[in-house]
Amino acid sequence: MPYHQDISACFGTGALALDERIFAELLAGTAEALDALRLARAEGSLPLLALPGRRDDLDALKPHADRFRALCDDVVVLGTGGSSLGGQAIHGFASPGATPRLHFLDNIDPEHFEAILNALDFARTGVIAISKSGGTAETMTQLLAVLPRLAGGEDRLGERVAAITMPGDSPLRRLALRYGLTVLDHDPDIGGRFAALSLVGLLPAMIADLDAAAVREGAAAVLDQALGCDDPSLVPPAIGAALNVGLARAHGISQTVLLPYSDRLEPFARWFRQLWAESLGKQGRGTTPVPAVGAVDQHSQLQLWLDGPADKLFTIIMADRAGTGARIDPALAEDLLAADGPLNWLAGRTMGDLMEAEQRATAETLSAAGRPVRIIAMKSIDLRALGALMMHYMLETVIAAHLLGVDPFDQPAVEEGKVLARRYLQEMPRARG
Amino acid sequence: MPYHQDISACFGTGALALDERIFAELLAGTAEALDALRLARAEGSLPLLALPGRRDDLDALKPHADRFRALCDDVVVLGTGGSSLGGQAIHGFASPGATPRLHFLDNIDPEHFEAILNALDFARTGVIAISKSGGTAETMTQLLAVLPRLAGGEDRLGERVAAITMPGDSPLRRLALRYGLTVLDHDPDIGGRFAALSLVGLLPAMIADLDAAAVREGAAAVLDQALGCDDPSLVPPAIGAALNVGLARAHGISQTVLLPYSDRLEPFARWFRQLWAESLGKQGRGTTPVPAVGAVDQHSQLQLWLDGPADKLFTIIMADRAGTGARIDPALAEDLLAADGPLNWLAGRTMGDLMEAEQRATAETLSAAGRPVRIIAMKSIDLRALGALMMHYMLETVIAAHLLGVDPFDQPAVEEGKVLARRYLQEMPRARG
Repeated sequence: MPYHQDISACFGTGALALDERIFAELLAGTAEALDALRLARAEGSLPLLALPGRRDDLDALKPHADRFRALCDDVVVLGTGGSSLGGQAIHGFASPGATPRLHFLDNIDPEHFEAILNALDFARTGVIAISKSGGTAETMTQLLAVLPRLAGGEDRLGERVAAITMPGDSPLRRLALRYGLTVLDHDPDIGGRFAALSLVGLLPAMIADLDAAAVREGAAAVLDQALGCDDPSLVPPAIGAALNVGLARAHGISQTVLLPYSDRLEPFARWFRQLWAESLGKQGRGTTPVPAVGAVDQHSQLQLWLDGPADKLFTIIMADRAGTGARIDPALAEDLLAADGPLNWLAGRTMGDLMEAEQRATAETLSAAGRPVRIIAMKSIDLRALGALMMHYMLETVIAAHLLGVDPFDQPAVEEGKVLARRYLQEMPRARG
Repeated sequence: MPYHQDISACFGTGALALDERIFAELLAGTAEALDALRLARAEGSLPLLALPGRRDDLDALKPHADRFRALCDDVVVLGTGGSSLGGQAIHGFASPGATPRLHFLDNIDPEHFEAILNALDFARTGVIAISKSGGTAETMTQLLAVLPRLAGGEDRLGERVAAITMPGDSPLRRLALRYGLTVLDHDPDIGGRFAALSLVGLLPAMIADLDAAAVREGAAAVLDQALGCDDPSLVPPAIGAALNVGLARAHGISQTVLLPYSDRLEPFARWFRQLWAESLGKQGRGTTPVPAVGAVDQHSQLQLWLDGPADKLFTIIMADRAGTGARIDPALAEDLLAADGPLNWLAGRTMGDLMEAEQRATAETLSAAGRPVRIIAMKSIDLRALGALMMHYMLETVIAAHLLGVDPFDQPAVEEGKVLARRYLQEMPRARG
């Protein structure tokens, strides 16, 4: 397993300590969810569970990724929500300055959208438009706004413009066919927010020269352990689900903070926010996910976390950082770094040493303030670890949904707003063309 | 005033409707806070209130900004929390692709930090290190890690390396003097999270060729209206404070969502998060700020907001977007955009039309679901509007602190973690040098 989970600090005698019996009861309840997942994997009814073990689809994607890499300095990824956040999470591991540069455009703010496009050379720019349904208003609007910039190269557009959408007629597929774009199939049985391990997340990753197989490998390790073990008390995502639901039920803990001590995991925390919010936030249930990043949020949110209302569970993701980064040479500033200098504690240290000390101190301080803390300790923070975390949280979310009695795979409440937006658009006076 | 605030949807008959009497009582209580602010301005005891009217300090900054612009393709801004978020918020208005490129490095993740630095040409890179106290562990570590890369140009380092710190001896000031860096004074009476309108936020802005005076102008409009009016019911930040505190008190609303429909305001929402969390989250009081961005979060958090627990107040920042952006030409795809086509509602529309329709639909849908919604309608979303929003929220925060009975200007709880981190660092075995 690429990580070790420790929830021991959530029990004990404090006001927010989780009652062992409540937890044990919920944990026992996760067995049903794990059984359902085993059955779904065996029957093939949840294809996301088959992805970690597959490599054939990655082989098929490789020529596309290679072509984008050869023809493009920039690649624009159009799509929103689950069509963008998974790709962004994996792209958090790309080297700054590497080409092609990826631009995840997930909004419809015309000022920003056009400013980004204006800075690109469209002779060397690729486009990937992602919409599972093929009719997402934002994504279709984005693609229609980009198409005129691609004019002139129509006969070879398919080489560097691709659409990812599920099979069957749809506006996106029709548009792709008309313009000769490459069309790649989105599995109709994998929802957007569970699609990061599919081509939705991995084609952008491969274009950025990131190891898609490593992401899958990490996911497989977590999935195989979870479904291969018949004792939920040994299955980290089941434990996490019981912990979240237990603390909400017993102590009204309404927010779950995800605090990775890693810049690379910052977009992963935002991916998690969608996963948790859209999957569980229904029928008045669910808790609010709070994405964060350490050490930055020590200087932003920590005061509230320690001394504000006691309504949060904290999950801190950390790896051993001691000794990483360049060593601070005491000769840089003898007076500050000498034995009696005000920064002596930094002499001979590395930036990683400070990160290590701070992540431990934050966990300790939150615990000492009586706040429930879970530690996820990674061996290292790499693409395999990311894949493991993604699978961990997809499973934890599905299992938590089971305990809460909600369907993790739908998002019924947002439909009404879509209908209303379309009506407002129809009623609006037309722009002068 | 550069905006209009509408809280009418928070009253009425729904389960979360705010009782008019509770609100009126709280609003009356804001008069005291407004009086205290007036006195502080008159006495000069809160220098942040003098910033909007000043231009002399901007004149003094201009030669520095010009020098950075002339000598640098990239400028690295070192600092964390309030030393970074204000600059980031203003930098949200910079054009993509403009030079010098600004890089706000606010973390101590050695992998990411060194990867960013490795992609820069240090012969054409400037550095600004910001720490009010001059001893912030993260910022000092960052600067000590950057200094070796600047070797060779020591005699002229001050031309493109500056430190911003308060007067008096400190590690940062000593280091700056030793290396001949430019030193600029941080006002000791302006806390980091209230410093965006000072050189902390505005020097980076001016280096990015953004109009600092416009930001100040917007702030002045809000400040002058708030302190020039003796009826709190006409003062938007006082109304906002009473609304937040009232909903928390009457209905247990524990989270305050800030949802600007604008990409440029995305970092502003994160700036707000620190301001609200660190200023109010103490003695078990305060509410959790949730930064968001529209339309993106319709595909991430909206399901939870509409159908999850009713524990949030929503503030939607919007401007009139109708007709902005390029018009979608029906000839791009006649079959889709024709009168009977599936995307007919997009024909002849602009991306701004869709943004306009969606922001209205989201406000409407949240209201229809019985969730409290406040609208802040801007004339336009520009630097003047940003300055107005920053001053609005600084005042709203200070006034809310008064109603909650906490000190908005301290952050006592985070000190313990700092001491603990230092102890862990001292106990750690030294890296091999």
